[in-house]
Amino acid sequence: MIRAGEMLDAYPADLGAVDRTALMDCIEACFECAQACTACADACLSEEMVRDLAKCIRTNLDCADICGATGNVLSRHTGYDASLTRAMLQACATACKSCGDECEQHARMHAHCRICADACGRCEQACLAVLSGLG
Amino acid sequence: MIRAGEMLDAYPADLGAVDRTALMDCIEACFECAQACTACADACLSEEMVRDLAKCIRTNLDCADICGATGNVLSRHTGYDASLTRAMLQACATACKSCGDECEQHARMHAHCRICADACGRCEQACLAVLSGLG
Amino acid sequence: MIRAGEMLDAYPADLGAVDRTALMDCIEACFECAQACTACADACLSEEMVRDLAKCIRTNLDCADICGATGNVLSRHTGYDASLTRAMLQACATACKSCGDECEQHARMHAHCRICADACGRCEQACLAVLSGLG
Amino acid sequence: MIRAGEMLDAYPADLGAVDRTALMDCIEACFECAQACTACADACLSEEMVRDLAKCIRTNLDCADICGATGNVLSRHTGYDASLTRAMLQACATACKSCGDECEQHARMHAHCRICADACGRCEQACLAVLSGLG
Repeated sequence: MIRAGEMLDAYPADLGAVDRTALMDCIEACFECAQACTACADACLSEEMVRDLAKCIRTNLDCADICGATGNVLSRHTGYDASLTRAMLQACATACKSCGDECEQHARMHAHCRICADACGRCEQACLAVLSGLG
Repeated sequence: MIRAGEMLDAYPADLGAVDRTALMDCIEACFECAQACTACADACLSEEMVRDLAKCIRTNLDCADICGATGNVLSRHTGYDASLTRAMLQACATACKSCGDECEQHARMHAHCRICADACGRCEQACLAVLSGLG
Repeated sequence: MIRAGEMLDAYPADLGAVDRTALMDCIEACFECAQACTACADACLSEEMVRDLAKCIRTNLDCADICGATGNVLSRHTGYDASLTRAMLQACATACKSCGDECEQHARMHAHCRICADACGRCEQACLAVLSGLG
Repeated sequence: MIRAGEMLDAYPADLGAVDRTALMDCIEACFECAQACTACADACLSEEMVRDLAKCIRTNLDCADICGATGNVLSRHTGYDASLTRAMLQACATACKSCGDECEQHARMHAHCRICADACGRCEQACLAVLSGLG
């Protein structure tokens, strides 16, 4: 279980005007989505119809990298920079939308794509929620 | 919540002789520890006594990188290679031991170090459990 | 030496309308900047005045994560998605601008910050060059 | 161009008994190999015979993650921990050996596998050279 909430409580300085719950949810959603995308890419590789899943695997890999980087950026509060956080949240929401849409197309046939589409949707919403709170 | 278990259930081919529960626990522990280490490094940066925490921050950063890479490696099952998995689990257990020992020394004074030491300890044990099952 | 150019030449399908030289330069600049930021954060940690460098270290770590993820995204061409590439290049240019500006302030006193500011500036320009070619 | 050498020169404290040239070569080889593996995995995805390359793609992805983490660990010198560095170099050499052997099998047919096998071989040797100097 990602301990983002405990870690936010233990931060030794002021977190600023951020919505703490939205931030905690988003950090967790980023790591959840990164793992789901990494696992979905690998599961796609094991499917007989892998040729039809090449775009899905590529989007999975991009989304995993971007969610991982976003989860790290959001886990840091020292020397906070709103423009950088905003740009990264926008990139992450875009990646989750692309990957979620792609996985959705294979969700009926492949359970791993359905689980991954869910994780992407949750992460996209969590990014948008933090973004809307940044003003 | 990391969906490693759901993703293991959805894997379209045989997982081989691996202990499924140990693997799921280890994947989750790796991502939990990576996030805790990233957050602990940043919290240390905000402490007035940051000069005394330089070694702690460095070990946090190493452990975060290694746990993230290990969580990814363990999330892949296609084309499984026991020697690579074993070497990475050993590196991860070593990193978690170093980082946990270092954080433990600051655990009374800094709550973030206490939480991070817990995450490191759990991840080290989870790596050793998967390793012992690899034979 | 990053072999991005050789790898682009070896890509087995059409790369599309991308400016090949701009793309190759940007991939190399992303990995160069990621390494420089990781090394600069660590060098800052070894400075006696580390407390004055906390914001610099944080921006280094963010920039390293974002440049690494961007270098990976740009290294993939299968199932190309312009909106995702564009969002990530914008996040990367923003991170490089923030980190370069911060390092620039310490460039006279610390050689590692000067080298890192150079790497950030090159990577920001390389991202903007690819972005302008995306139309 | 990875600036590992410049960054080593700019490190504000003693680097210890490390072989500076071997370290610089290894940092560069790690980032070169990470990029080559990421690009090779994507190029394999674009091949018509992708089903025959599933193991190659998986090994590419593992090797990319491990080389990236190793390059980061080697870029940090503050609070140096020989046991952690040694374990990570061993994991990286193992990953490069596995990935290089796999890519070698496809090197005649696919230029990207040949370039990637070269990068893996160079990185494996660079890791072993640093390891032998650690005593």
